[in-house]
This record gives sequence, C-alpha cells and structure tokens, in this order.
Amino acid sequence: MFDLTVYLSRNNDRLDRALLNYLASSGRGSRLAEAMRYSLMAGGKRLRPHLCLAATEAVGGSLEAALPAACALEMIHTYSLIHDDLPAMDDDELRRGKPTCHVAFDEATAILAGDALLTLAFQVLASMPAVLPERCLEVIRIIAAAAGPGGMVQGQMLDMASEGRRLTPEELKNLHALKTGAMIEAALACGAVVAGGSCSELDAVREYGKAIGLAFQVVDDILNVEGDPAVMGKATGTDRVHRKNSYPDLWGLEKSKEFAQNLIHMAIQAIADFDAGADALRALAHYIVDRKK
Amino acid sequence: MFDLTVYLSRNNDRLDRALLNYLASSGRGSRLAEAMRYSLMAGGKRLRPHLCLAATEAVGGSLEAALPAACALEMIHTYSLIHDDLPAMDDDELRRGKPTCHVAFDEATAILAGDALLTLAFQVLASMPAVLPERCLEVIRIIAAAAGPGGMVQGQMLDMASEGRRLTPEELKNLHALKTGAMIEAALACGAVVAGGSCSELDAVREYGKAIGLAFQVVDDILNVEGDPAVMGKATGTDRVHRKNSYPDLWGLEKSKEFAQNLIHMAIQAIADFDAGADALRALAHYIVDRKK
Repeated sequence: MFDLTVYLSRNNDRLDRALLNYLASSGRGSRLAEAMRYSLMAGGKRLRPHLCLAATEAVGGSLEAALPAACALEMIHTYSLIHDDLPAMDDDELRRGKPTCHVAFDEATAILAGDALLTLAFQVLASMPAVLPERCLEVIRIIAAAAGPGGMVQGQMLDMASEGRRLTPEELKNLHALKTGAMIEAALACGAVVAGGSCSELDAVREYGKAIGLAFQVVDDILNVEGDPAVMGKATGTDRVHRKNSYPDLWGLEKSKEFAQNLIHMAIQAIADFDAGADALRALAHYIVDRKK
Repeated sequence: MFDLTVYLSRNNDRLDRALLNYLASSGRGSRLAEAMRYSLMAGGKRLRPHLCLAATEAVGGSLEAALPAACALEMIHTYSLIHDDLPAMDDDELRRGKPTCHVAFDEATAILAGDALLTLAFQVLASMPAVLPERCLEVIRIIAAAAGPGGMVQGQMLDMASEGRRLTPEELKNLHALKTGAMIEAALACGAVVAGGSCSELDAVREYGKAIGLAFQVVDDILNVEGDPAVMGKATGTDRVHRKNSYPDLWGLEKSKEFAQNLIHMAIQAIADFDAGADALRALAHYIVDRKK
C-alpha cells in the first residue's frame, strides 16, 4: 500500500536540502538573501515540486534528475505569492501563518526578492546536470509559457480585474486555468520531459494536471468557506468579504465538492495506463481533495 | 569609415520588428500586453541589444542568430526599469520623457508587466532557432546570473540602501558593477557565445564590457549634472537632490570625464586583436562617452 505521508516527507527533505543549497549559492547574508529564504522556506505544501517528481517517477525517470526542475517550480510559485501579496495587488499581511514578505521586510525588498527568485529559477533550469540540453530547453519553454503573460501573470491580472464583478462559470474556469492551472500542468509536463517520457505519456500527465489543477482551486474555495483558520494558517471567509468569485458562491458547497471529486476521478482515469510508478500521482490526486489546508 | 548612425538605425529597425513580433505572440489586446508594449517600445537606446549584436559580428557570427538574445536582453532591461521606477523603489514618474509604467497604468499592472517581460525573455532565450542547444543554455545561465540575486537585483538593493550614505569609490564601483555592469557584460558575452566565439574572444569582449559598463555609469552621472533635460527626456540634478552617490560628487566633473575616457581606451585595447568585424564595438565605445542622453 502506497504511503503518501512517508513519500511526501522523504521528498520534502530532499527539496529543502536542494533549495537551501541553491539559496546559499546565490548569495548569503544580504537582506535580499534573507527575504528570499524567508518566503521560500516558509513551510509551503510544495505541491508543484511533488507533482513534478511524481510525474518523473511515473515515466520511469530518476528523482535526482528532476530535482532542479522541482526546485525551480517552487521558486516561481514563491515569487508569484510574494508579488500577489503586495499592497498594490491583493494586499495580504498573512501567509502560512506568518507575516508576508513585504510585512516582514519592506515593499521594495519583497518586489526584488520575487524578481530574484524568478530569475534564479531559470538559472537552475539551465543548469540541470543530469538532463539532456534539448530537454532542458523544452522544460524552460514549458515553464516560461505557463508562468508568463500567456499564463500565470495574465491570470493574476484577470483575478484583480474581476474582484467585485460576477464571473460566469466559464470565465472563472479560465481565470483559474491561467492563474494556478497552467503552472500545475507545467510541473507535471516538466517531470515527464526531464525523464524523456513519450508523447502519449506527456499528454496523459498534462490531462491529469488540468483536472487536479482545477480541483485544487475548487477545494481552495471550499476551504475558504469552511476550513479551520488555525489549521490553514490564514483567515477564512475572505473570498466573500472581498467579493471574490468562487465555486461555492456560484454553485453552493455541495455541488462544488461533487465537482472536485469528479475532477479527481478524471485525473486518475487520465493516468490509468501507467503502472505502480504512478501511485504517487494517484495518491496526490486524492490528497488534493481531502486536504484540510 | 564605419558609420555608427546608419548601423544603429538599421539594427534598431530589426530589433523593433522582432520585439513587436514577440509581444504579439505573447498576447494581444489585454491591459497587460498594452503595459508591456508601452514600456518596451518607449524609445530606449537599446544599448544592450546593440552590444550583443556587435559582439556577435565581432566573432564572425550572424546577426539573425543573435537577434532573439538581443531582444531578451532588452526585455530584461525594460522589466528592471519598470520595477525600479515603482513608488516603493525609486518612485520615478518620468522615463524617456513619458510617464513611467505605473503612472500610465497602475502599480499592480506595472509589477506584473515587469514580471511578464522577465519571464518572456527566458522563453525567447529557450527558443533560438539558429543556436545550438548547449549554447542556448550557456546564454541563459550567463543572463540569469547577471540579472539575478548575484547581479542586477542585488545592485538595486545596494543602490537603495546607499541613498543618503556616503560610499567609498570602491563601494560605488561595486554597486555599479552589479546594477548595470553585469548585464552589459552579459550582453557582450551572449553575443560571442551565440556565435561560438573562442574562450579568448569571450574573455576579450567581457573585458571590453566591464570597461564600457563602468564608463556608461560614469557618463550617466556626468549627464545628471550637466546634461540637457530636454534632450535627455528626464530631469537632471536629481542625484544631488536625492543624495545619490555619484562620480562627479566623489571626484569632481573633470576627473570623472578623464576616468570615462580612460575606460573607453581600455575597452578598445581589450578588443585590439579583432579585425574590422569589431568596428561596431569600437564605435559603440566612443558613443558611450560622447552621448548627450
């Protein structure tokens, strides 16, 4: 029987060690280095790196080869959180139970720490010792496309523009596909590309990624309604206060939960042809709907 | 006789066309796309791309092969200006005679337009059709190292931390080496790498780059004292008002001018072994000290 807790804990140790090494090699002691470390090591779920590593395992690749890409994904995710939390954006003061980067440091340092993490991510991706050059470039193209103006950044623009405006279910789905879905799908695609997965394997993990990416967001919205702030390390009920569009708001809680379960079912179907090497992906799909934070 | 005006104008046309194509392919019509275009096409000198193309020519490479890298350098330079101009950073309202990005749009859009340009730059660098994969990766490593926490971003941190504090000449040189020097040197190194230059060619253009990078900053400081605001498209005398450390302040105007001339002489010495293919580099070195804006 696959034990996800053991699996996540083992890979978390690997990821933490690798991330700390990258931080150390990019500069020590400076205020900038402190701010980068503060946010990168703030105890996130590391969902994108775990998905990347699990996709590599699913296509029979080595975790060591995929570790740099997994770290780069977490750096990009962290940069996006730092910038989204800024006063000019979502103006959040708390993240994972700790003051956000611009509160703990200052706005200028937070902007630059985000910039530095984004840039460092691409340096890491261009320096993957156990990955063929063509595959490194493909990974960089996939991640840049998902993170940039055709993906995550555009998603954050849409998110801000839609506050206080009622979106259709289609518009909300598009917003999330850009803001969170693109990078989750990219994490899976990168894991498969690093390990030299076939086209059909790549398609399968991408389809899995689309489904769990959307499920992740639906569950986020549900937790914002009925989650425990102490467990989550952040306030709940904020979507309603800020008049953010959410699935529970559009469809009610019960139908949103059903939708999330259906998406997980679709995700697991998408990787049905994989052997036991994909057990981590299967367990992660269930974890995404069952999580409490 | 080499005509720099004709040379710059011809390459400016190429650069503009290529940049507009990249912008179009990254999304049209959105507010994000407008903000990216506004700042990227605001009439900068395009110094880094010109240096990159000239370095390619100096080692006998094709301009077409180097054009994507030249565009990526300008995207990264533009992102850095957008973020440096933000209220939380240098709080500048005018750049090249036009309102800065956050004034023309808003702060959130400016932060995201910067993020998008930085990310798009790496997508472009990972998609250079006429460059070998190993060389693409080398170019990405060079640019990320120069732009990131060990280069430009750290330079901006030091710049902000040093306002109102008197720096030693050594500290000021280090600040500029990080803030502007690293990316100028990277532009030259990339031009040489794209074209498969030898180690000694790479060393030569890097040495040239170090010298003109510092000269560029010294001249910037001189222009801030005695430049014509109408020609420059921005206010002068601001370094003194903001108590910024500058070379004229440390050494006086005359000695600063002499220092800039010496640096240009060193730059031209560094590329003495190149043939007429390096005439653009030679002319650009003179242009850097003789410019009026």
